[in-house]
Amino acid sequence: VLATLPAGALSYGEPAGHPVLREALAGLLARRRGVVAGADRVVVGQGVGHGLAVVAAWARRAGHTAIAVEDPGSTPIWELFNAHGLRPVPVPVDAGGLDPDRVAALTGVRLVMVTPAHQFPTGTVLAPDRRRALVAWADRVDGLVLEDDYDGDFRYDRAPVGALQALAPERVVYLGSASKSLAPALRLGWLVAPYALVGELAAQRRYHDLMSPVLDQLAFAELIRSGGYDRHLRLSLRTYRDRRETVRAVLAATRPDWTLSGIAAGLHVVAEVGENAPALVARAAAAGIRVPSLATYATTPAPGVPDALVLGYAHLRPAELTPALQALATV
Amino acid sequence: VLATLPAGALSYGEPAGHPVLREALAGLLARRRGVVAGADRVVVGQGVGHGLAVVAAWARRAGHTAIAVEDPGSTPIWELFNAHGLRPVPVPVDAGGLDPDRVAALTGVRLVMVTPAHQFPTGTVLAPDRRRALVAWADRVDGLVLEDDYDGDFRYDRAPVGALQALAPERVVYLGSASKSLAPALRLGWLVAPYALVGELAAQRRYHDLMSPVLDQLAFAELIRSGGYDRHLRLSLRTYRDRRETVRAVLAATRPDWTLSGIAAGLHVVAEVGENAPALVARAAAAGIRVPSLATYATTPAPGVPDALVLGYAHLRPAELTPALQALATV
Repeated sequence: VLATLPAGALSYGEPAGHPVLREALAGLLARRRGVVAGADRVVVGQGVGHGLAVVAAWARRAGHTAIAVEDPGSTPIWELFNAHGLRPVPVPVDAGGLDPDRVAALTGVRLVMVTPAHQFPTGTVLAPDRRRALVAWADRVDGLVLEDDYDGDFRYDRAPVGALQALAPERVVYLGSASKSLAPALRLGWLVAPYALVGELAAQRRYHDLMSPVLDQLAFAELIRSGGYDRHLRLSLRTYRDRRETVRAVLAATRPDWTLSGIAAGLHVVAEVGENAPALVARAAAAGIRVPSLATYATTPAPGVPDALVLGYAHLRPAELTPALQALATV
Repeated sequence: VLATLPAGALSYGEPAGHPVLREALAGLLARRRGVVAGADRVVVGQGVGHGLAVVAAWARRAGHTAIAVEDPGSTPIWELFNAHGLRPVPVPVDAGGLDPDRVAALTGVRLVMVTPAHQFPTGTVLAPDRRRALVAWADRVDGLVLEDDYDGDFRYDRAPVGALQALAPERVVYLGSASKSLAPALRLGWLVAPYALVGELAAQRRYHDLMSPVLDQLAFAELIRSGGYDRHLRLSLRTYRDRRETVRAVLAATRPDWTLSGIAAGLHVVAEVGENAPALVARAAAAGIRVPSLATYATTPAPGVPDALVLGYAHLRPAELTPALQALATV
């Protein structure tokens, strides 16, 4: 990038991101995730949290005061919404994900955030009829769906579930990042917005961080353009699938009484352990194993969903995973 | 940086910035600008505008609703404060810079932003007694001074004027960036905050952009550590001084009736042209020369300061400057 960069590219640039990266991302997201993403819908950012902050700041200014969120869900993101003056309203998820009827029953809420590809943390996939119902609701109330595609790249046993955004590009803000696929410290993220919103979201950055560093943007664009990013994702998929297989095999051998779910995709599985999960969390901690329970992420126990363990495995090699899982099975 | 980076550094990091860069910046700012800057006062950011946004968001939450600003001044920064719910209150500058008595006379204002080293755009240096009076005022009202040291690295004829922050580190937020010294597109900035504030400003980032990209931070830290950044600043100083000399020489030869001011430092000079400046701006534009008038940056004509031309020269080589100035002198 440095060898070919024109001097003019080192000046102040577009808050929405460098056109070369926006074009590369539009192609990548259309191809891999089915996102309806012309470059003119893309705003480059520095992570999904950053994208949500940009949308939240806009939403607050546009008069929104609350947002429906999945329960259990990502509590740091609830705090982020709170910090921007949007009250998170928890909506229980079940085996089909978030129930749009429960969102529609909320008074005065026209915003919802979902993780449709692999719900965090239950690992469920948002059911096709619920996807359609959710965007129909957004149309009806002039609302907006925020789609955090945090695990969309990591589906192991069949073709990935496409992005919800494709159903209604004018009702969904799609958000993604390279934090899971490359590294969080790179601060590479993106959103794809409705045409009615993209200019306002980019303008929002003018009064915050202005724009992302251009060298990082163009290096990432080159990684995408060269095919290196796709190769890296394929390699990561194989690596993480091997790790998931280790989880499945070790627990099948040691704890056949546990039930695993959310296993088709992502970087963690949920294990129903048939006993008091918090007590097991405490015993595991005493044995040097950090594993949260599902209830950690919930405001209220989900109906019909027993408490369980949330087992993150993607950062551990099989040789590290195996003894940790065996120790967990024992405690 | 990539050759030596531990894998752990690629995960989520500190919102205040990587400790290695904070340490490097603390040394640099103490040495070059006299800033009282332990690494534990430093928050890394992505430019002065970004730093101001972080401070403004904090200030609004802390109950501030207005901020005194220099008039004439940087109008995009006024817009930034407005966007964060802080009403900019313009205070006229004269030959000694901002008058602290005029700030003290404002009701309900406990925030002020200044450019003490080289006021933008008049080029005046904030007078020593006014520096003392300004921080005394801040002490009296439990207020805060935001010091944008945008031109502090470029003083040509004698030793630089030290940072105002050194007078009262608990009453001043010092802000700087590499946007003028390296390039805006790198998005490298920093602030040095009172101890009472630094944690809150870093926390503020947690709900916005979280943190700056780590590779950029560590590459810049290495540039500082190696002495390369100091060498670059010395080279830039010589280069820009030559360009300033070109401005002085060409205008002395062609328009001895014009008076130059703000010439001791910075990247622009102000030229009093003894006639209707806006009319001259229009004639210059017709001749292909973009030059704003001082009034462009003011809400009200400054008392005793005639309108004038603001001549930015730092981005033009002498061979480009000379014909442009000759053409300007002719129109």
